[in-house]
Amino acid sequence: MTTQLSPTERSTVRRGAHRASTDRADLHATLDAGLICHLAMVVDGSPRVLPTGYGRLDDTLYLHGSSGARSLREADEVCASVTVVDGVVYSRSMMHHSMNYRSAVIHGRARHVTDPGERWEALRVITEHLAPGSWDHARQPNKKELAATAVIALDLAEASVKIRTGGPGDDAEDIEANEAWAGVLPLHRTWGDPVPAADLVSDLPVPEHVLRRG
Amino acid sequence: MTTQLSPTERSTVRRGAHRASTDRADLHATLDAGLICHLAMVVDGSPRVLPTGYGRLDDTLYLHGSSGARSLREADEVCASVTVVDGVVYSRSMMHHSMNYRSAVIHGRARHVTDPGERWEALRVITEHLAPGSWDHARQPNKKELAATAVIALDLAEASVKIRTGGPGDDAEDIEANEAWAGVLPLHRTWGDPVPAADLVSDLPVPEHVLRRG
Repeated sequence: MTTQLSPTERSTVRRGAHRASTDRADLHATLDAGLICHLAMVVDGSPRVLPTGYGRLDDTLYLHGSSGARSLREADEVCASVTVVDGVVYSRSMMHHSMNYRSAVIHGRARHVTDPGERWEALRVITEHLAPGSWDHARQPNKKELAATAVIALDLAEASVKIRTGGPGDDAEDIEANEAWAGVLPLHRTWGDPVPAADLVSDLPVPEHVLRRG
Repeated sequence: MTTQLSPTERSTVRRGAHRASTDRADLHATLDAGLICHLAMVVDGSPRVLPTGYGRLDDTLYLHGSSGARSLREADEVCASVTVVDGVVYSRSMMHHSMNYRSAVIHGRARHVTDPGERWEALRVITEHLAPGSWDHARQPNKKELAATAVIALDLAEASVKIRTGGPGDDAEDIEANEAWAGVLPLHRTWGDPVPAADLVSDLPVPEHVLRRG
């Protein structure tokens, strides 16, 4: 796979094309910065979208779920979206209000992962994406848990990424009129203080990978 | 519309049904807490999902976009998802790792709003959702801008809401083994310091609705 994104017709960004990036590194960085994805599929002819965790390994996105979940079991053609909102853009005019964001959209066919080695690796990257450091700290999956888990893979071949940064793009008349403030209010994801489980049987210290999560 | 959600077959929560709420107030609160929604539709037989702003007025969700955007112009049957992640749940076992979240999913047919009064009101609630206080502070839309804007409405009739709160749900053996820390790392949305636009022609003060945004 090249470092350049080679979009197909449907993964070519049309609206706001100047915000489209063709750099695969931007796609990876956006996927790595998000926490959840929104996975869309067609069920009984109707669109359906659900939020779910994920993990990335090179150019594959992995998702997992209960092997009993119809949505995942029947997933065929899917579209996954990962969006990170970085701020609200306040403009002099209402119509130029916007957001700063990083948005990745991936089209593809879900591949149901059956190889035990790949399934194990997929669960590791999904865990490490949700909770970095947990794979080695927590108890890893046993046979029964593995049997109850479905894993799907989505190739990052047909993907697009759109990034907006910077200030408002107001019309010249509005800038000159100077009747409203304009700027950006940055939005951050911040972690609060860890809350130990009520049923911890002893005073286990909060591990570093939780305490120092970035 | 009653205060109880009356889900149809497809809006009945199956996986993790104990997390489903049937309270309309929870649906409204979740929609009001989110910043963006992920809108799914079927385009040329394939699923497509895109992130977009929105606003809520009573039991209607409003979305807007360029009247030239094919996706919005042709939107018919859609599914919208609003997800707020409140924390990461660290469990003793990898398979019980989870998130605390509020998730609203709405199914319905997009209604293309043509009535000028409703369009105006929709733009107001979309603006106020993105940037509370901006509708009265910034310049409101002019005729040309209105003509370039498509507004769609989605009835909140067929909707579901799922909420997870609290600590991990580990297996008894893992709790007893006491070999891994367990608890919740809360996730917060925090606003940074406002960044005035580089092209502000005078030192307009940052307005209260930006400075004090909650």
